[in-house]
Amino acid sequence: MTRDSDGLSATEEEIMHATHRALVNSGYAELSISLISDELDKAKSTIYHYYDSKDALLLRFLRFTVNRFEETINTSIGDHPKEDLNHIITTLLPCDLTEEKRQLHSILVTLSPQALEQEVFREQFTEIDARLSTIIEKTVRRGIDANVFRAADPAHVAEYILATIKGTMYSRLTTNREAATVAAKSSLSSYIDSHLIS
Amino acid sequence: MTRDSDGLSATEEEIMHATHRALVNSGYAELSISLISDELDKAKSTIYHYYDSKDALLLRFLRFTVNRFEETINTSIGDHPKEDLNHIITTLLPCDLTEEKRQLHSILVTLSPQALEQEVFREQFTEIDARLSTIIEKTVRRGIDANVFRAADPAHVAEYILATIKGTMYSRLTTNREAATVAAKSSLSSYIDSHLIS
Repeated sequence: MTRDSDGLSATEEEIMHATHRALVNSGYAELSISLISDELDKAKSTIYHYYDSKDALLLRFLRFTVNRFEETINTSIGDHPKEDLNHIITTLLPCDLTEEKRQLHSILVTLSPQALEQEVFREQFTEIDARLSTIIEKTVRRGIDANVFRAADPAHVAEYILATIKGTMYSRLTTNREAATVAAKSSLSSYIDSHLIS
Repeated sequence: MTRDSDGLSATEEEIMHATHRALVNSGYAELSISLISDELDKAKSTIYHYYDSKDALLLRFLRFTVNRFEETINTSIGDHPKEDLNHIITTLLPCDLTEEKRQLHSILVTLSPQALEQEVFREQFTEIDARLSTIIEKTVRRGIDANVFRAADPAHVAEYILATIKGTMYSRLTTNREAATVAAKSSLSSYIDSHLIS
């Protein structure tokens, strides 16, 4: 069976794209295996063959999305590590949260409780964070190599930036403190300017 | 009716303390209104008189805990803003996560999804973040006034530190990336040293 870089078969990849369409067309609250199978134009049993539950599918979908993000970043980043880092941050924490991104980030919040207890969910969350952290780390490392960024531990800086992004993302979705998002983002920029820029 | 600084009646405050005991004795996964009423030594109906559901009670309990934290910080902090800020961060992000703190932080993760859609949950999450942010902001402001910290926007710095703490807290509970917690904490310290310390 042909598998893509995600280790997904062609059918699984179709399921991922159908999930994305269902999410965009119906929103997270309405999302169901039925809606996804309608978008897929295949029986629900096809989906259940691969995923035990809607949550298991959504978790895999999150990782799929992070992988797509990784591919986009890898092809779009160039010789400007500062702009690239800024691009990564803005993609994860856009000034205006589109409805599509809100739905996507909501999946993360909604599935988090399951990662508290269930190892299979923890593993996917671990994988997602590891991928995001690596994307940031590589960009920081390129900046250091190019003397655009000051010497720093790229892995430490990446975990720190990722933690700030995630905290801001969660708070943005679960509170009515929009000014806090703006303040955290602005301080993150000023951290990068003062701590990373030579 | 006498109410404390939380606006809680004596009975509500007893319910909060019973919830804390039940959480410590039984853990979050086992926590139920029955267990809390056992600790309270009153009928379950007493609890339901004040709170519609276990989740509503737990959300109020989280805010109660943040208020206790606020009181402790207010009485324990002194004339050393840098140590005080460090104390606040270490209390929220201890090196060794005790079982009691893990249970407490788990409530935050578990209730987050409800804040996506339900305004009453969003309001409590908003209140909790606002309190935590104010605690940090006051300490940063005292440091600036005492010339221990460099001039900075205390509100911005506070939101930034809080976002980093929250992101690290969530990731710590939902992933198997303990090194990421250590890295994010260490970078937060180095941010404070380089960005805030005169």
